[in-house]
Amino acid sequence: MSSAPENLESYLSGRWLRGEGIETRLVDPVKGDELATVSAKGVDLKGALDFARKHGQGGLRGLSYAERGKLVGAVADVLVANRARYEDIAIANSGNTKTDAAIDIDGGIGTLKYYARLGGGLGDARMLLDEKPVRLAKAENYQAIHLMVPRRGVAIHINAFNFPSWGLWEKAAVSLIAGVPVLAKPASATALLAHAMVKDVIAAKVLPDGALSLLCGGAGGLLGALTGEDVIAFTGSADTAARVRGHPNVVARSVPVNIEADSINAALLAPDTSPGSAAFDAFLREVVREMTVKAGQKCTAIRRIFVPAGKADAVADALAEKLKGTKVGDPRQAETRMGPLVTRGQQAAAFDGIRRLASEAAIVCGGADAPTLDGIDKNKSAFVAPTLLKLKDAGGAQAVHEVEVFGPAATIVPYRDEQDAAGLIARGGGSLVASVYGEDKDFLVRIVSEIAPSHGRILAVDPMIATAHTGHGIVMPQCNHGGPGRAGAGEELGGLYGLRFYHQRLAVQGSSDLIANLQAKAASVH
Amino acid sequence: MSSAPENLESYLSGRWLRGEGIETRLVDPVKGDELATVSAKGVDLKGALDFARKHGQGGLRGLSYAERGKLVGAVADVLVANRARYEDIAIANSGNTKTDAAIDIDGGIGTLKYYARLGGGLGDARMLLDEKPVRLAKAENYQAIHLMVPRRGVAIHINAFNFPSWGLWEKAAVSLIAGVPVLAKPASATALLAHAMVKDVIAAKVLPDGALSLLCGGAGGLLGALTGEDVIAFTGSADTAARVRGHPNVVARSVPVNIEADSINAALLAPDTSPGSAAFDAFLREVVREMTVKAGQKCTAIRRIFVPAGKADAVADALAEKLKGTKVGDPRQAETRMGPLVTRGQQAAAFDGIRRLASEAAIVCGGADAPTLDGIDKNKSAFVAPTLLKLKDAGGAQAVHEVEVFGPAATIVPYRDEQDAAGLIARGGGSLVASVYGEDKDFLVRIVSEIAPSHGRILAVDPMIATAHTGHGIVMPQCNHGGPGRAGAGEELGGLYGLRFYHQRLAVQGSSDLIANLQAKAASVH
Repeated sequence: MSSAPENLESYLSGRWLRGEGIETRLVDPVKGDELATVSAKGVDLKGALDFARKHGQGGLRGLSYAERGKLVGAVADVLVANRARYEDIAIANSGNTKTDAAIDIDGGIGTLKYYARLGGGLGDARMLLDEKPVRLAKAENYQAIHLMVPRRGVAIHINAFNFPSWGLWEKAAVSLIAGVPVLAKPASATALLAHAMVKDVIAAKVLPDGALSLLCGGAGGLLGALTGEDVIAFTGSADTAARVRGHPNVVARSVPVNIEADSINAALLAPDTSPGSAAFDAFLREVVREMTVKAGQKCTAIRRIFVPAGKADAVADALAEKLKGTKVGDPRQAETRMGPLVTRGQQAAAFDGIRRLASEAAIVCGGADAPTLDGIDKNKSAFVAPTLLKLKDAGGAQAVHEVEVFGPAATIVPYRDEQDAAGLIARGGGSLVASVYGEDKDFLVRIVSEIAPSHGRILAVDPMIATAHTGHGIVMPQCNHGGPGRAGAGEELGGLYGLRFYHQRLAVQGSSDLIANLQAKAASVH
Repeated sequence: MSSAPENLESYLSGRWLRGEGIETRLVDPVKGDELATVSAKGVDLKGALDFARKHGQGGLRGLSYAERGKLVGAVADVLVANRARYEDIAIANSGNTKTDAAIDIDGGIGTLKYYARLGGGLGDARMLLDEKPVRLAKAENYQAIHLMVPRRGVAIHINAFNFPSWGLWEKAAVSLIAGVPVLAKPASATALLAHAMVKDVIAAKVLPDGALSLLCGGAGGLLGALTGEDVIAFTGSADTAARVRGHPNVVARSVPVNIEADSINAALLAPDTSPGSAAFDAFLREVVREMTVKAGQKCTAIRRIFVPAGKADAVADALAEKLKGTKVGDPRQAETRMGPLVTRGQQAAAFDGIRRLASEAAIVCGGADAPTLDGIDKNKSAFVAPTLLKLKDAGGAQAVHEVEVFGPAATIVPYRDEQDAAGLIARGGGSLVASVYGEDKDFLVRIVSEIAPSHGRILAVDPMIATAHTGHGIVMPQCNHGGPGRAGAGEELGGLYGLRFYHQRLAVQGSSDLIANLQAKAASVH
C-alpha cells in the first residue's frame, strides 16, 4: 500500500473514471490512517447501464453456459495469480486477521470455481429446462414445458462492507454464468479490495466489454435508471434494503430485488447434551468461532445462544473463559486472533447495541467500551472486546430478539423446554441461519422441522459430524443463502437454483414436436 | 336476485359482519340497477388476521398435503352443488354471457379440483423435498438437503374484478394445499359472486375455522397489520400493484408479494402463413375470441396483433368482418355473444384508451362511443363495441405498446421481418402471454426463444394443434401465470411450482443419518 491516499476509480462504460470531490474516506481501523477516497458524484450511471446492456449483454448472450463457465473460471485464475496482494489490502482496510482475509478472498475464489464447474456441466445450452413436458389435453400432441431463459438486463449488485471479495464474487459468479452483465457497487468503507480485484480482472481482459462494471462511491440515480429487465441483488442492513426495495422506480417497474439482510441468528444446545460430549464441545467451539471470526461482522453470525435453563451458568462460564483467552489486537501481529470492526462508526453502533442488550441482560465479559490494547490508540481505532451477555428471564426480554450488534457480541438465552425454545427462536422475526447441537437425533429432527419456517438454512450438528461440518456462519455455494422476514426474504446461491434469479421462467404451450425441439435445446437443472 | 340491494357482509374472525356506511355500490352494467353495497369501514382487520393465524394456521398445520387436498376437493364439491345460482349472479353483476360466466365459475372449480388431486399426490407428507441430498465435504457423512416448509402466516389475496370466481379459487386452492389460511379481498364492484360462493363454503363447514376469510370492502389498514410470515398475492392494475408492493410495512417486513398485473399481450402471425391455412385460421379465430370473450376484460387478452406488413390489410378486413358479426347486447338474450364492461367507470377508461390509441392508429371498426343497441339505455349501461385499430407505421408508434384498453379492443401492428417483430413485441415491457401462429416450425422455435425473456407464457400454434389448443388467454393450472416487468414479475399456478410462494425454502446441513430422516418425511415436487 502506498502511504498517499489513493483516489479509487469506478469502471463504467468500459473505462476507469472518478466522480467529483470526495464522498467517503477509507481508513485503516487499527491505525486510523486514511488509505483512499471514493466519489461517484456526477458520474453518468444511466450511460453505464446502457453500455452494460448493449456490450455486456451482447457479449454474454451468444455464449453457452459452458462458455460462460470458462469466463468465470478465468476470473478465478486471475484472482489466484494476484492473491498475495489482496491479503494486505484486507488487513489494512478491513482490519482482517489472515484467517478473516482468507475466508473473504478464498471464499470468493472458491465460489467462482464452483460456478465455473456448474456452468461447464450445463454444456452447450443457452436456456434451462425447469420442468419436463406435461400434457395439457386428452390429445397427446398438445403439451407444455417450463423453461428458464437469461434476462436481458443488467444485474445491480449492492454489496456489504464485511465481505468485499466474497460478496462481490458470489453474486457475480452466478450472474455471469446466467449471461447477465454485472454492475457491482461495493460498500465504500472497504472498497479497496473489490477495486483491486476488479482492476486485475479488467486488466487481464478475460471478460467481454461491459460484462463487469464497478461503481466506487454513492449509487446516486442508479435505481432510478433501471428497467423491468434489470435485477438488483442487495446485501446489507435492513434499513438500506427497505430503501432499495421501496424505491419508486423499482416498485413501478417490478424490478426483481433479492435482499440478504442481517438477522438475529440462533444457536441451540439440545436439552440432554452433557458437558464434555462431542456435541457440547462442538457447540462451544462454534459459538466462540462465530463471535470472533471477522470480529463478529458476519450477517450469519450467532447472536442468540439458546441453552437449557439449568446449563446456562455452566455454558456462560465456559464461553467466557474461551472469549477472554482470544487475543485481540493489530491483525499484523502473528498472535492476534481478532481484529477491530471496520470503522469507528461501526464501533459506535456496536457499543450502542451492547448497551441496549445490557438493559435486559447481564454482561458476562466484554462490554460497551473500547478495550485497552497494547500499542493501539483508542481514539483512532475501532476495537470491540468479545462480549457475552446472559439473560436471566427469557420470557420478558425484547431487545435480544430485535437488536443486532454487528460485532463480537452475543447473548445467552435460557429456555425451559423444546416448545419454549422454538417459540423464542421464532421471535427473531426470520433469520438467515440457525444451528442446533445435540446427540438425540429425534430431537434434532423435531427442532429443525419446528424452526424451519423462519430460516433459510439450518445446521444440525450431531456427534457424527461434530468436527467435520463446515460451520454455522460459512455459506457454502451448494446451499441456500437468505432468510425470511427480517433477513430480507431472499434466496442466493444454492447451486443451480441460484441461476433462477437471473432467468425468466416461462411456460411454452405447443405441439409435441415443437415442445420436443425446445426441450432438446435446454439443459436440465434437476 | 332480490330487487332490494343486499348489504354484503365480510367473513372475518369466524363471523359475518359489515362495516359502517357504504363504500361501494354494485351495479348491473346492463340495466344500471343497484344490486348490493359493501363496506368494511371500521372493521377489525388486525383481529381478523390474528384469528386466521391462530385458528386457521392451527387447523391446517397439523394436516398432511393429502388431507388438505381433500378439503380443497370438498370446497369444489360445494361449488358444484350450488353452481346454478352462480351463473345468474355473474350475468347480473358482471354482465357476463353464459360462456363468460362458465369460464369464471368452472375455471375456479376446475382449478380447485386440479389442486385437490395434486395435494392427494403428495400423500402424508407435511413438507416438500426440493433437492436431494448433496455432499458438502469429502466425507460422505456431511450433507445438505433443500426442503420447503409451509409458511406460518396468512395469505392475503387481493383479487381483480374480472374473475370474481376463478381469481378467488386459483389462489385459495394453492394456498390451502400449502397449509396457509386465506384472507381474500374481492374487487368491490363484482364482489357478489365471490361473496355467494364463500357463503356457501362456510355454511357447508368443510374448512377449519379461520382457514378462509372474506373481506368485502376497502382493505383499510390490512397491509399495515401484516408480518414477515404473511404473504400477499395481488391481481389487478399496475398502479394498485405499486401501492401494495411499495407499502411501507410490506417493504419494512419483507412480506413476499406476488403481482399479476395487466399487460399488452401480443399475438403474432408468422411471415409465410397463407390465408386459408390451418394456422392462419387459428390466428383469426383466437384474436376474435380474445377480443370478445368477457368483453376483452382479461389480463391475458390479446392487445397487439402482429402481422407481416404485406398481410395487414387482409387480416384487418377478415377480423373486422368477424367482429362486426359478433352480437353485442344483454347477456340474458340467447343470441348475445358479448356483454358490457363491468362498470361505467371501466367503460369511460376504455373509451379514453381507445382515443389514445386512435391518435396513432386508424380505427377499423368500433370506436370510443357507446354503441346503439336494442333495448339498452346508453346512459345506464357500460357497453363498448368490439374495436379494431391498425397502425400504418409501427416504427414511431408508442401508445400501442403502453396503453392497455381493458375491453374489447386491439391494434394491428405490421412488422417487416422476424427481428423487427421480436423488437416490437419486447416494447410491451413484459407480458403475461404471447401467442404465435405459423407452419414453419423452425421459425416458431426461433421466435419463441427470442421473445421468451419478456414473457411468462407463450402459446405456439402450428397446424398439429390448430384446433386442439386451450387458447391464448385461458390460464391452465399446469402452466406458469405471470410475467416480467409491466406484468408484475409474478409467478402463479404452474402445478406444484405454485406451492413455492406459500412455503419457506431452506437448506438443512447435517449428518447423512439426519438428512436421510428428513428426506423420508418430505414429498418430492419434481
